[in-house]
Amino acid sequence: MILKVKEPIESEWPHLRKGQVVFTYFHFAASEPLTRALIKSGAIAIAYETVQLASGELPLLTPMSEVAGRMAVQEGAKYLEKVFGGSGILLGGVPGVLPAEVLIIGGGVVGANAAKMAAGLGAHVTLLDISLDRLRYLSDVLPANVDLVYSNRHNILDQLRKADLVIGAVLLPGAKAPNLVKRVDLKLMKPGSVIVDVAVDQGGCIETIKPTTHENPTYIVDGIIHYAVANMPGGLPRTSTLALTNATFPYAKRLGKLGWKRACKDDSSLFLGLNVIEGKVVYPGVAEAFGLPLVDPKTLL
Amino acid sequence: MILKVKEPIESEWPHLRKGQVVFTYFHFAASEPLTRALIKSGAIAIAYETVQLASGELPLLTPMSEVAGRMAVQEGAKYLEKVFGGSGILLGGVPGVLPAEVLIIGGGVVGANAAKMAAGLGAHVTLLDISLDRLRYLSDVLPANVDLVYSNRHNILDQLRKADLVIGAVLLPGAKAPNLVKRVDLKLMKPGSVIVDVAVDQGGCIETIKPTTHENPTYIVDGIIHYAVANMPGGLPRTSTLALTNATFPYAKRLGKLGWKRACKDDSSLFLGLNVIEGKVVYPGVAEAFGLPLVDPKTLL
Amino acid sequence: MILKVKEPIESEWPHLRKGQVVFTYFHFAASEPLTRALIKSGAIAIAYETVQLASGELPLLTPMSEVAGRMAVQEGAKYLEKVFGGSGILLGGVPGVLPAEVLIIGGGVVGANAAKMAAGLGAHVTLLDISLDRLRYLSDVLPANVDLVYSNRHNILDQLRKADLVIGAVLLPGAKAPNLVKRVDLKLMKPGSVIVDVAVDQGGCIETIKPTTHENPTYIVDGIIHYAVANMPGGLPRTSTLALTNATFPYAKRLGKLGWKRACKDDSSLFLGLNVIEGKVVYPGVAEAFGLPLVDPKTLL
Amino acid sequence: MILKVKEPIESEWPHLRKGQVVFTYFHFAASEPLTRALIKSGAIAIAYETVQLASGELPLLTPMSEVAGRMAVQEGAKYLEKVFGGSGILLGGVPGVLPAEVLIIGGGVVGANAAKMAAGLGAHVTLLDISLDRLRYLSDVLPANVDLVYSNRHNILDQLRKADLVIGAVLLPGAKAPNLVKRVDLKLMKPGSVIVDVAVDQGGCIETIKPTTHENPTYIVDGIIHYAVANMPGGLPRTSTLALTNATFPYAKRLGKLGWKRACKDDSSLFLGLNVIEGKVVYPGVAEAFGLPLVDPKTLL
Amino acid sequence: MILKVKEPIESEWPHLRKGQVVFTYFHFAASEPLTRALIKSGAIAIAYETVQLASGELPLLTPMSEVAGRMAVQEGAKYLEKVFGGSGILLGGVPGVLPAEVLIIGGGVVGANAAKMAAGLGAHVTLLDISLDRLRYLSDVLPANVDLVYSNRHNILDQLRKADLVIGAVLLPGAKAPNLVKRVDLKLMKPGSVIVDVAVDQGGCIETIKPTTHENPTYIVDGIIHYAVANMPGGLPRTSTLALTNATFPYAKRLGKLGWKRACKDDSSLFLGLNVIEGKVVYPGVAEAFGLPLVDPKTLL
Amino acid sequence: MILKVKEPIESEWPHLRKGQVVFTYFHFAASEPLTRALIKSGAIAIAYETVQLASGELPLLTPMSEVAGRMAVQEGAKYLEKVFGGSGILLGGVPGVLPAEVLIIGGGVVGANAAKMAAGLGAHVTLLDISLDRLRYLSDVLPANVDLVYSNRHNILDQLRKADLVIGAVLLPGAKAPNLVKRVDLKLMKPGSVIVDVAVDQGGCIETIKPTTHENPTYIVDGIIHYAVANMPGGLPRTSTLALTNATFPYAKRLGKLGWKRACKDDSSLFLGLNVIEGKVVYPGVAEAFGLPLVDPKTLL
Repeated sequence: MILKVKEPIESEWPHLRKGQVVFTYFHFAASEPLTRALIKSGAIAIAYETVQLASGELPLLTPMSEVAGRMAVQEGAKYLEKVFGGSGILLGGVPGVLPAEVLIIGGGVVGANAAKMAAGLGAHVTLLDISLDRLRYLSDVLPANVDLVYSNRHNILDQLRKADLVIGAVLLPGAKAPNLVKRVDLKLMKPGSVIVDVAVDQGGCIETIKPTTHENPTYIVDGIIHYAVANMPGGLPRTSTLALTNATFPYAKRLGKLGWKRACKDDSSLFLGLNVIEGKVVYPGVAEAFGLPLVDPKTLL
Repeated sequence: MILKVKEPIESEWPHLRKGQVVFTYFHFAASEPLTRALIKSGAIAIAYETVQLASGELPLLTPMSEVAGRMAVQEGAKYLEKVFGGSGILLGGVPGVLPAEVLIIGGGVVGANAAKMAAGLGAHVTLLDISLDRLRYLSDVLPANVDLVYSNRHNILDQLRKADLVIGAVLLPGAKAPNLVKRVDLKLMKPGSVIVDVAVDQGGCIETIKPTTHENPTYIVDGIIHYAVANMPGGLPRTSTLALTNATFPYAKRLGKLGWKRACKDDSSLFLGLNVIEGKVVYPGVAEAFGLPLVDPKTLL
Repeated sequence: MILKVKEPIESEWPHLRKGQVVFTYFHFAASEPLTRALIKSGAIAIAYETVQLASGELPLLTPMSEVAGRMAVQEGAKYLEKVFGGSGILLGGVPGVLPAEVLIIGGGVVGANAAKMAAGLGAHVTLLDISLDRLRYLSDVLPANVDLVYSNRHNILDQLRKADLVIGAVLLPGAKAPNLVKRVDLKLMKPGSVIVDVAVDQGGCIETIKPTTHENPTYIVDGIIHYAVANMPGGLPRTSTLALTNATFPYAKRLGKLGWKRACKDDSSLFLGLNVIEGKVVYPGVAEAFGLPLVDPKTLL
Repeated sequence: MILKVKEPIESEWPHLRKGQVVFTYFHFAASEPLTRALIKSGAIAIAYETVQLASGELPLLTPMSEVAGRMAVQEGAKYLEKVFGGSGILLGGVPGVLPAEVLIIGGGVVGANAAKMAAGLGAHVTLLDISLDRLRYLSDVLPANVDLVYSNRHNILDQLRKADLVIGAVLLPGAKAPNLVKRVDLKLMKPGSVIVDVAVDQGGCIETIKPTTHENPTYIVDGIIHYAVANMPGGLPRTSTLALTNATFPYAKRLGKLGWKRACKDDSSLFLGLNVIEGKVVYPGVAEAFGLPLVDPKTLL
Repeated sequence: MILKVKEPIESEWPHLRKGQVVFTYFHFAASEPLTRALIKSGAIAIAYETVQLASGELPLLTPMSEVAGRMAVQEGAKYLEKVFGGSGILLGGVPGVLPAEVLIIGGGVVGANAAKMAAGLGAHVTLLDISLDRLRYLSDVLPANVDLVYSNRHNILDQLRKADLVIGAVLLPGAKAPNLVKRVDLKLMKPGSVIVDVAVDQGGCIETIKPTTHENPTYIVDGIIHYAVANMPGGLPRTSTLALTNATFPYAKRLGKLGWKRACKDDSSLFLGLNVIEGKVVYPGVAEAFGLPLVDPKTLL
Repeated sequence: MILKVKEPIESEWPHLRKGQVVFTYFHFAASEPLTRALIKSGAIAIAYETVQLASGELPLLTPMSEVAGRMAVQEGAKYLEKVFGGSGILLGGVPGVLPAEVLIIGGGVVGANAAKMAAGLGAHVTLLDISLDRLRYLSDVLPANVDLVYSNRHNILDQLRKADLVIGAVLLPGAKAPNLVKRVDLKLMKPGSVIVDVAVDQGGCIETIKPTTHENPTYIVDGIIHYAVANMPGGLPRTSTLALTNATFPYAKRLGKLGWKRACKDDSSLFLGLNVIEGKVVYPGVAEAFGLPLVDPKTLL
């Protein structure tokens, strides 16, 4: 078996070979050519983004969420500068001057990592989540300058009014993030405030968000700076690559050692990563996206 | 020499003897009978409250400020309860519910101790002071949930609007505390909020404050609960007595060992504690208060 | 369906209507008139206090335990004052004077919240629990001035000897709290020490405890001040109400959206909250308390 | 007296009037036209940048150092991104991946503030200074992820080898910062590392540094990104202006109340701020810069 | 039933009686005479070391791991002294001098406890583990001077190069610890560095490790000091005995109350502790070790 | 000028040359041969141990106090082990078992460093000092598990009763440490407790202390283990040498640059370091020790 653990770049597609196992991010639904190339090649495609634990966690996305959550704060801090249209406030203030207010919507991996960074810079942080159990755990481990508040429409609006930086950190596994901040809500915000929406890959939890790039990361709507780079961790590849490899390595090792059939039989998480097997689409989302026939992967193991 | 280190209670006044040294709190200006009894006795009265370091610090009041600053927070927490007319907010909130806002006016010994306690209970604390150097030091040593803000009229009003608990902690050595919160300012505050004025012994830094007792500690003005017990540390005598003794003991030891004349000659702080010497008033404030002749203590050493 | 989410006050009982769903605290076993009024009305009574997760946790009591645990420390601090008969010690001491010793019996929600507050005030805290796993977790997240000790009779007596404040925090879901501190043990304690028993609603874990009110919160037995307000969170309604609503809201939303039958079928926690359905008692404890026939709620869904 | 507390913009120069007091940043030595306009106007120019305490501290520059020190870390974090040529490392790493190494040269106001921010983001920080007393104080108040190391050539080179981000924080009051990092030393550094030199206004402590602007903040030398915006706090005007006003206000108040003559007589710090008085240059540096006659300000008070 | 909860010393073996229940550490596989004595006696032997939870945890070994993990750091600190051949570095350094590097291999109970201690002494700590979830939790609760790194051969070698103290903390329940540090790897280490292998009882995770005693705790290989006391907690019996009793007491109580048959039937963890029952070996490892017949314990309950 | 910065070993004495400057530890009073060799050589001896700041601090001893204070805790932890006669308690305890009690007598450099380490290991620490100002500062910067108590005979005895480890940290510049723990006081202590007296070089603050060596560091009196190595930092030379060099380097640099005459004229601290100048004894203590004539160094500059 030949195992490839790398994102397939377009020039490589023609070279994929029958029986070759490719274990990487595919995001097939976003690219019909890639899907068709894979089908044609006869290779076995196991996608990082659909490997899933029984708990619903996507373990090969978690490291990217950690990086993105931490980056979100440094992006927010930067784009608050006046030269980018920001209100010119320093997150942590200085002795004698109040710090900035940072609002984090969502207390999962992204939100908790963002909260640590914002608190570390001395900002006054409010983190909203709908799980009281999660808020209780976070209150045990986060610094004292993070307030943990139950998330509902009333509290979101209340906090938007005073926020200098809003971080959208709502990611639902396999679903579009809900629009918790509406376009009209921007009017409540102070001009020059910044929104960083880490959920942009899933449609975003801010209505006015649309994907941007590392080259042109921000745009302004109603006086509010929007940062919405679609692949944030790509901006810090040294940390991101190591973080991802730490997560994928145990799976890759098992694939290499046991072969893909045995490895996917033994591990139900990895099994869910199977997307295309020797020309047959075996993942529902991919089949649906392009109207292709779906084959039950169990019949191919 | 006979040294007495204890507050003179009224029944003891007739028994004070000529040449006896009494080292304790006197607050002569507040009691003409005590002053006259001391003068008549021929004793030497060295008053804790006027012992003063070159820096202006009153070292035998400092321990009481520490106790009072810490107590102020537990009093405030208590009188926020509904049964006392308070707004019913818990200082630290709970996971999911915002904590209370505590405003501390003054960052000296009282304020810093109050800030530690309020932060320790999980409140969101704002401490105001006019010394940037003091705010810088406090920002080095206080927890992350204390904001350190320059004190001016604008910032005071701004903070009063959101405060659930206000602690007046402005003490100027030897001067009446300035009225930083005016009666009209109470209108800005949320009903059921609490004011604890630790400066009440010096007239208070809140215009509507007037001294109360441990038995009847609070009263309400314009919907705001006022706590203004005149001798707060007296409520916790076990801690206060030990704290005070730690501070007075080195002076008492020197008085006992060297005699009062030598001890007061050698130590300019102790010298300032001399109030009455064998029938003669030697401290300006006492002489002024009752129109008595003032003698220069240097002539009596 | 009409959903009411509010404690039924006596004057409302006659107005409860057939088919109306009432979702609130009932504590039926404590009031036969209320029970009979509910039966007669034909309403559906879903009681906060019997909603229960598979883990045994009572999720609609947890927020009240958080509030009560945090309050317990401020009550203890207050009633240590001399004017209430207390020993006059300040929980955190001051530099130069030892802090007070706080003993917390039980490391669940109440105990952990109490420990955070007492530690935040600078006291020396000892928390006893019989679960080593719980103590290990708490040692990861509590401050350094909390000692975590295995609970047994020997250790309880050992700690009682030095405690200035004892917080009873033992709550067993659905059972009377065990009497871990006997009447005779009070003799070991220092006079003027304070006991706050948060378990008083369940009979208390201190033998000498009996319920008091916010108006008359304390009484003294053998020189020890007892604070045992039956409904502590009621003293801080602003925080308590928000905390409770955060917990009940998701259930109420589902009741409103799905109707009580569907909602209780889908969610086994909510199902356990059913106490009375259209005239029939469906909760064993209520039927037993008043010798009423018990109906299996499954037959009524 | 008319007091103006604002930086004089060019269009205002002709309107400055005789006897008017202007209290602001001037930096006369950098602009002969401004100097001549002031002389011609007959106004009194008191410059923020030369007000100086007996300790040598420049109290009206300190707030700017605080802002710049804190900003330096967020700039460094940002320009480590790949899109700017950086090495792509996240300052704090993520669980499983090492954090970045941040080297701070200088432990004064700038360095200490930078260290707090970098540590708050989870980086591994090394701060170098030549004062052991300063390092001892910083070891008391900075977080555990800051190493405090004596500054000498050996240690600088040692740390440069592993640093991902270097912050130049050496400011000597009234003197050019020494070039502690030579051009040749850059060869030791890892490609894609970032240098932020906060001392650039004084010539910088990095040999390869030269001033940049907020619009074009960085350039690359030998593979190392250099950030050297000359007026960093200008990028965050909201915080900077408040911070500066807190520091200048007490001086401005005294100028307004006492008049400039009395105020400068009474306060030797303010006296040193006098640069031009009614047509006469009274500050040595200004006179030297343009070969103008110097008048002793004492003769004009 | 007579219950004995004490390690059986050799002189007691002849006195063990039929039907007596002995609940203690046995380590039968290490001593054939003890095994045969037990069989002959007819007693029931329940071994601490094989009581096992469903999660795989050995709850009666956990307290010993806690003690050993914490001790490992103080042993390492001590044997770095020059008199023992160590490199003479102080773990925490002092202000101006870098701290030592401590490498901890394994993030379970031993590793986490060691990390807390080493961080508490001010060292720079790197902890390696292969579970990202464990690293994430540890990053929430450990101090800022602990780096959490994914464990693989590359990272181990990288860290060995700079480590002053290496703590082997890899314990796999019921299996020999893997040799993660090879003999050849010692060449990478700095002379005078110290290795403490807490896994020595299971063969150690360092190839060059072999058990030592409290009397002669260390030996040197290739310039590296090895500390490998086989029963570390035995050196601190006061803490260890209390810690162990806390864990065993609930089991002993149930054995005493219910009798061994009922207690082992009710509790599957305790059931796994059964090693010898009235002359019959019922634990596979013991039977295998000496070629004795194995009886299914279920047939004897 | 030839500058030597190294402790003069006996074999070098004959080689010391006239006019050579030797800057190092001498401790002349302890060695008449060394003194006479220096006199004979005609060299200039500047002794680290008598360089003294205006504040009384001995800046070239401070780094050694830092190392010794930190080491004191690891020595104490080690010798509490049973194999050395200790009580077998682990300083930090484990979850479920109380930590040890550490008593530190003296809150200067030694005591503060010891307190940080003991607190870092999780012990319960009590630090005694007679300066309230010092206790107040330490309460700002030390962890929560350090109690700061005023030092007097009553408190010392009280704490000795419960201490598992006592650290003597009383150093008075230029004077014998007072015997704060008398021989008879040892009876109050628990058997197997440990005393580490860092003041042993100055006679010790424990009556029963006498100097030991790194090879034989401890002895037992009345069941109490005494650790009293005379030159503790010598056990960790790597850290100690760097720490010392950081402190001496600026002086050595000035000596080298300016020559000893100018350097000693300019710097009154260094001036006090002059002990022998070209055959003449210029330091009172040395002259007194051996009945040698004393010359005023000012006459020789």
